[in-house]
Amino acid sequence: MGALTFQVRAEAESATRTRAEARQFALVIDEPPALGGTDAGANPVEYVLAAFGGCLNVMGHLIAKEKGMELRGLRIHLEGDLDPDRLFGRPTEERAGYSAIRVRLEADTEAEASLLEEWRREVCERCPVCDNLKHPTPVEVVVERSASGTVA
Amino acid sequence: MGALTFQVRAEAESATRTRAEARQFALVIDEPPALGGTDAGANPVEYVLAAFGGCLNVMGHLIAKEKGMELRGLRIHLEGDLDPDRLFGRPTEERAGYSAIRVRLEADTEAEASLLEEWRREVCERCPVCDNLKHPTPVEVVVERSASGTVA
Repeated sequence: MGALTFQVRAEAESATRTRAEARQFALVIDEPPALGGTDAGANPVEYVLAAFGGCLNVMGHLIAKEKGMELRGLRIHLEGDLDPDRLFGRPTEERAGYSAIRVRLEADTEAEASLLEEWRREVCERCPVCDNLKHPTPVEVVVERSASGTVA
Repeated sequence: MGALTFQVRAEAESATRTRAEARQFALVIDEPPALGGTDAGANPVEYVLAAFGGCLNVMGHLIAKEKGMELRGLRIHLEGDLDPDRLFGRPTEERAGYSAIRVRLEADTEAEASLLEEWRREVCERCPVCDNLKHPTPVEVVVERSASGTVA
């Protein structure tokens, strides 16, 4: 098929609130008051878990279909541990992001244990978001002044 | 401060559509028709970019404030390349997720080039989502049958 390119445009509506647009979809991201925000939306690291949940659903159904495994329903419980010291600039040995992510898939199925385990393993291996969390990805960030900044 | 734990509950509304809940916020994730979905929301890998954009906004403002750098506005353009062959189970050498992510920060500021570069570098280093994309994160996925599945 060749690589697809996905794009998102985001704009600061305040120091913590972001409006992001992916095609026709607008998403509001903010921080809770405890993290200095105005709580207008889920926060960035919650968005990461939601993305992961969405991806596991798609992959779970796709792979169940391939294997002829009935899947009548799927609930996904995700959690991640994050020490905010680095992001706040406090002295720490901890990393900035999640140090661990745990997922529990609650599958409504009567598949045998061995098939269920084969399904679980394949879902993990082929899930794009899981791959980007588990393995390093090249990220390039460049900065430029916006028009009004350069004119001044 | 010690680690915080963030949680998201997600449920399959269809084979591609997911409803995710983070605290009081509900998010709808789907796939476009070209990827087999019903286009009820942004897709999982677009959610990843939106999360990253939201995180860069928070970190951009936080670090500008620390440095006394005026930041009147911030636009963030994100894109990522993803070959869907592995997710669809086709023979491929490509990874499942984004092979590369590119971000352009458009900052409305008159900060000098050296300060702007220092800001950019620190934003990247302290941004949780950037960290989780650039570096490996332990991910554990377990599966269990839901109640109706075990009773049958």
